[in-house]
Amino acid sequence: MSQTTVSYKDEHIYEFTPDLEPVYTAENGESLTIETIDSLDGTIQENTDILDAIPEEVNAATGPIAIEGAKPGDVLKVTIEDVRVNENRGRVVTAPGFGLLQDHDDIEHPLTRITPVQNDSIEFEGLNVEIKPVIGTIGVAPATESYTTLVPHDHGGNLDTTDMTGGTTAYFPIFQEGAMLAMGDSKAAMSDGEMCGTGSEIGTDIDVTLEVVNDPPVSLERPLVETENEWKTIASAETMETAVELANRDMVELLKREHDFEATEAYMFSSLVGGLEISQVVDPLVTARDAVPKEYLSNPF
Amino acid sequence: MSQTTVSYKDEHIYEFTPDLEPVYTAENGESLTIETIDSLDGTIQENTDILDAIPEEVNAATGPIAIEGAKPGDVLKVTIEDVRVNENRGRVVTAPGFGLLQDHDDIEHPLTRITPVQNDSIEFEGLNVEIKPVIGTIGVAPATESYTTLVPHDHGGNLDTTDMTGGTTAYFPIFQEGAMLAMGDSKAAMSDGEMCGTGSEIGTDIDVTLEVVNDPPVSLERPLVETENEWKTIASAETMETAVELANRDMVELLKREHDFEATEAYMFSSLVGGLEISQVVDPLVTARDAVPKEYLSNPF
Repeated sequence: MSQTTVSYKDEHIYEFTPDLEPVYTAENGESLTIETIDSLDGTIQENTDILDAIPEEVNAATGPIAIEGAKPGDVLKVTIEDVRVNENRGRVVTAPGFGLLQDHDDIEHPLTRITPVQNDSIEFEGLNVEIKPVIGTIGVAPATESYTTLVPHDHGGNLDTTDMTGGTTAYFPIFQEGAMLAMGDSKAAMSDGEMCGTGSEIGTDIDVTLEVVNDPPVSLERPLVETENEWKTIASAETMETAVELANRDMVELLKREHDFEATEAYMFSSLVGGLEISQVVDPLVTARDAVPKEYLSNPF
Repeated sequence: MSQTTVSYKDEHIYEFTPDLEPVYTAENGESLTIETIDSLDGTIQENTDILDAIPEEVNAATGPIAIEGAKPGDVLKVTIEDVRVNENRGRVVTAPGFGLLQDHDDIEHPLTRITPVQNDSIEFEGLNVEIKPVIGTIGVAPATESYTTLVPHDHGGNLDTTDMTGGTTAYFPIFQEGAMLAMGDSKAAMSDGEMCGTGSEIGTDIDVTLEVVNDPPVSLERPLVETENEWKTIASAETMETAVELANRDMVELLKREHDFEATEAYMFSSLVGGLEISQVVDPLVTARDAVPKEYLSNPF
């Protein structure tokens, strides 16, 4: 049975706003394929195509997609079945004023390196890197503020989190009727941190199933993911110190509930297993995670 | 063939200073067992033993051990063969003014939870956690400044890095004649981040082999570890943003050398594979790592 494809060609956004209008309305439980274009809208195809500045519009996110029955306070469950690259090259770029080492004299801005796709790998200057696709930007309509697709926040957005890939189930708080999911900015490969400001930026076809958890037993303030072996809270903030504090606090709440712990015991337990991880340190806000193995945490929904 | 044991009972330090005197001098290539006491010097044995404040002397580090032939500019190679817990309980504690969530109203300071050892696990309030020992504090005599064993810096010290365990080879810059290695502050288990300020603090017996890399082809400014599958740079700083910048920069240098990359290409490549990791966010300085799989980086020494 074929499923509907929603493409960036149908509609895409460069800003998550509270009042998004859907390009498509999915049934609760519907499976879709979402087609995304690379974060630079196809403008970088050769090493000689360079970014003199971060474009005003970047990270085109395919959507918004409304989900029937989604209302504020519910939780959106996005089961990511598969992410497939859909073009023959990715691109890694630096741009002025962007990236962890932007002030180092010997780091060139702008510079572009095209990474050709070769079977299951991309090639970077003679080195093969296994393709492990990442959805860089994924989120829903926020509560009151608007965020460009370059910014991560509680609604998701530019989380640049390597766990956002096939096999992961992502949960988002729902702030607006219909949730209004959008995603794009995929990478063929990306390190935790995304230090130079990009991974290998590439177009993808993403298979997802969208479900609403009505009146959830746990209210979410920020994204949460279930990977093969772990649950991870995800938080974005001005500093890494604040991001890890939020991610750890969210995990403390989940551990408290699961084990009838006092907050301090949950906090102590979070210091023994799994731990803090870095998603990205380069977007206007930074993003961190706190992971706990599934043997210590069951599905809260 | 039995090997020498150096115990905290022989000598231990609470401060890494430039002018340490050795309790033992090892031959270049000698294997030793190093016995450590828990970071709180055995003062916490029951849940009713609590820490009203972080003690002035904490993280007793067994040593210093001089290594013959070690001179400033060389590199100390510490092959960690095994770390074994040597007592029947660990302890997780909170203390006032310490820990990631220290300002949260419902987090109690001080609080202690004893974690009994049961075969290959510790038990935390009914949950079993597999013992994965970590050497919390490990380092050498620094160049000019002194650092208490609560502080991590370029000499190592309180790195609280989960990779410091059996199977890892750790490399340290040598700043002083003899290197003057010391270690302690082990944990039976610890998460990346060590959010509450401790793991399960415990005494250990540590088997190591100590070798000097004379006139190394790569000069080290900070610690570097080789794990089963990766090389990781390690850096400590006032903020996580600075720590990850240092760790990434060190990795860029290793990648440049290995692949004859320009700095920018090495930086781009570091954004594709492995990535940034958090060691700890609670000591007076924070510690981060940058990992690259061994398939892309060979032993630089």
